[in-house]
Amino acid sequence: MREKRAMDGRRRRFLLVQRPRGWPRAEDFALIEEPIPPLAEGEFLVENWYASLDPAIRGWLDDRPSYLPPVPLGEAVRATTVGVVAESRHPDYPVGRWVVGLNAIETHSVARPGGFTSLVDVTQVDSPTRFLSVLGAVGLTAWFGLHEVGRPRPGETVLVTAAAGAVGSLVGQLARLQGCRTVGIAGGPDKCRRLLERYGYDAAIDHRGKDAAALAQEVRAAALDGVDVVFENVGGPSLEAGLLHLNRHARVVLCGLIAEYNAPEPVGARNLWQLIVKSARIEGFLVSDFLPRFAEGTKALARLLAQGRIVVDEHVEDGLDRAYPAFLRLFEGTNEGKLILKIR
Amino acid sequence: MREKRAMDGRRRRFLLVQRPRGWPRAEDFALIEEPIPPLAEGEFLVENWYASLDPAIRGWLDDRPSYLPPVPLGEAVRATTVGVVAESRHPDYPVGRWVVGLNAIETHSVARPGGFTSLVDVTQVDSPTRFLSVLGAVGLTAWFGLHEVGRPRPGETVLVTAAAGAVGSLVGQLARLQGCRTVGIAGGPDKCRRLLERYGYDAAIDHRGKDAAALAQEVRAAALDGVDVVFENVGGPSLEAGLLHLNRHARVVLCGLIAEYNAPEPVGARNLWQLIVKSARIEGFLVSDFLPRFAEGTKALARLLAQGRIVVDEHVEDGLDRAYPAFLRLFEGTNEGKLILKIR
Repeated sequence: MREKRAMDGRRRRFLLVQRPRGWPRAEDFALIEEPIPPLAEGEFLVENWYASLDPAIRGWLDDRPSYLPPVPLGEAVRATTVGVVAESRHPDYPVGRWVVGLNAIETHSVARPGGFTSLVDVTQVDSPTRFLSVLGAVGLTAWFGLHEVGRPRPGETVLVTAAAGAVGSLVGQLARLQGCRTVGIAGGPDKCRRLLERYGYDAAIDHRGKDAAALAQEVRAAALDGVDVVFENVGGPSLEAGLLHLNRHARVVLCGLIAEYNAPEPVGARNLWQLIVKSARIEGFLVSDFLPRFAEGTKALARLLAQGRIVVDEHVEDGLDRAYPAFLRLFEGTNEGKLILKIR
Repeated sequence: MREKRAMDGRRRRFLLVQRPRGWPRAEDFALIEEPIPPLAEGEFLVENWYASLDPAIRGWLDDRPSYLPPVPLGEAVRATTVGVVAESRHPDYPVGRWVVGLNAIETHSVARPGGFTSLVDVTQVDSPTRFLSVLGAVGLTAWFGLHEVGRPRPGETVLVTAAAGAVGSLVGQLARLQGCRTVGIAGGPDKCRRLLERYGYDAAIDHRGKDAAALAQEVRAAALDGVDVVFENVGGPSLEAGLLHLNRHARVVLCGLIAEYNAPEPVGARNLWQLIVKSARIEGFLVSDFLPRFAEGTKALARLLAQGRIVVDEHVEDGLDRAYPAFLRLFEGTNEGKLILKIR
C-alpha cells in the first residue's frame, strides 16, 4: 500500500483511537486508508516523505490543557513532517516544492500556512531528514534552549540528561564549542561510550539501576566544581540529582520530562529547596518561543554542520506500518539519534 | 534570670543540643546560663533585645550543605537580633549604639562586623522591632523577591502563599501598590479575613483540608485570567495548584518551602511540565543576593510605612523561656504577623 500516490486519491493514516494511560499501547492507535479530502481555497496537499517522532507527541495525546490542543480521537497523530507539495490551492506553496510543517503521521496531509510551515531547499543538504533533525525543531531546541535559556559561559559546567538523544547529543556538542565542560547522563554503557567518543562529552554517567542518591554521587564526582547549567530532558531522579550540585545562580533549562510522560500519576521533583539556597532557577521553554529567530538558528547550525564541527545522528525507521513500535523506542530509549519515520 | 546584665558577666542562651528530625521537639534544645566569653580585638558584645524567629532557622538546624553552615550542636540557635552594644573592642561599634546582626537566640552575643551587621537609628521608628520586620530581612525579602525576581507588571495577577505571614502580607500589599490583582492562600477563615480586610488582597483561598486538585480549582476561580507571578513561601499542594494556572512566561518566585522543612523525607513538586508548556520559570533567591541594595530597599519600605501605605503586623512573644514554643508557631501557623522573641 505504501506506493499509493496522491493521484490515487487515497491516503493512509496513523490514527489515535483512544487516549493512552501510561505507556501507549498498540490498541490506542489504528492504521486506516481513506480518500484524500478535497482542498479548500488556501490549502495545499503535502505528500509526506518523513515524519519526526518526538517525545512531545506523547503530551499531545493526553486530554489536558497544553500549548497545543490534544490530538482529537479519530484523527491522525500530529507530527512534524517533511514532504513535497502534491496539489495546491495556495500560490506560495506550488506543486513540487519541498515543505516542512506540523502535519501528521500519514501519507498525505492537507496543510495551510502556519507557524512552522516553511518551504525548504533540499539541494542544500545531503538528506531531507536534516530538516527534521539538526535543521529542524530538534536543532533549534538545542540551540535556543542552551544559548538563550541556559546561557552558559566559557569554563562553566553543563549537565545534560538524555545526553545521547537527539537534542541532548547536540546540546553537549554546542556547549563544548562554547568552551564549557560537559557531563552527560544516559542509559547503558553503549550510550555512555557514544557520549565520550562521538559527542565529545568530558564525562558520562550511566543512570541505569541508580536512584537519585546514587546518581547524585556520580554527578558530584563528575562535576567537582558544581553544575552551572542543567539541560533537563528527563526529570525524576536525574533532575533531583542535578539539583543537589548546582552552583550559585545556576540555570536548569527544562526542555522535557520524558520520565513523566508515561507515568499514570504525576511525578514530583524533590530538592527544590536547592533553588533557594543557590539562588538558582528552573526555566521551561518551547522552541516556538524563538520562532522569529528560527532563520538565525538554522543558519548557525547549518554552518557548524557544513564545517564538520557537529555530528548529527538520525535513526530512520521504514514505513508507516512501523509507526507504533518506532514511537515506543523514544520511551524505551532504543533509538540512536533523532528518530524519524520514513513514510514514502 | 532575665534581668541579668552584661555587667554580671553571665548570659543565657537557647542551644541546639540535637538535630531535629521532622518537627523540632523540646528535647532538641536547652536553655543554659554561662559566663560571657572575653572579647577578642575587633569584637563587640551585643545585648540582644529582640530576636527574629524565621522559617529559615529550621533549615540551619539540619546538617546538610546550604548557604550558611549548620548551627553546631551545643551552640546557640542562629537568629537575627536587634540590640545594644554593651562592650566593644571595635571602633565602629561603640557601647550604647543599636545594632542589627545575624547573632543567636541568647541574651548577649559576641559579634564581629559581617554581611548583615549594621548600626540602626531607633529614633526613626516607633519600635526597634521594625528592624526585624518591615525594615529588616522580612521587608527586604518581600521587596526584592517581588520586584526583582517576580517583576510583576501593572494589571498582572500575583498569587501569594502563606499570604498572611510576615513576608506574604507585605508581598500582597506591595503587589497591589504596583497595580496588580492579588490572590492569597492562607490557613483558616481568620487569616483569610485578614487577607481581604487588612492586607488588601482581591481574593483569599483557605487551604485547610484541601488537596492540590481542590486548591487548583479555587485558584482557577480566583484567577480566571491565570497567574503571572507566584510568590511561593510554602511548597507542596499550593505550589502544585499554582503551577496549573500559570500564564505564558509566568514567574514563580521561590522564597520558602515551609511545608517541606519539617518533613522527614523530601517532598516533591508535581506539575513541573507546566513550566515547559507555559515557558515559565521557578526562581529561588536569598535576600542576601541583594545586600548591596539593602539601603535602597529599606528606604523605600520606610517611606511606604511612614505614608501609611502598608500595614505591618508583629507578633512578639515575651522571654527567652518562650523560645521553643514561639519557634513552633511558625510551623503551626499560629503567629499573626512577623514573629519576634523579646529577650531583654
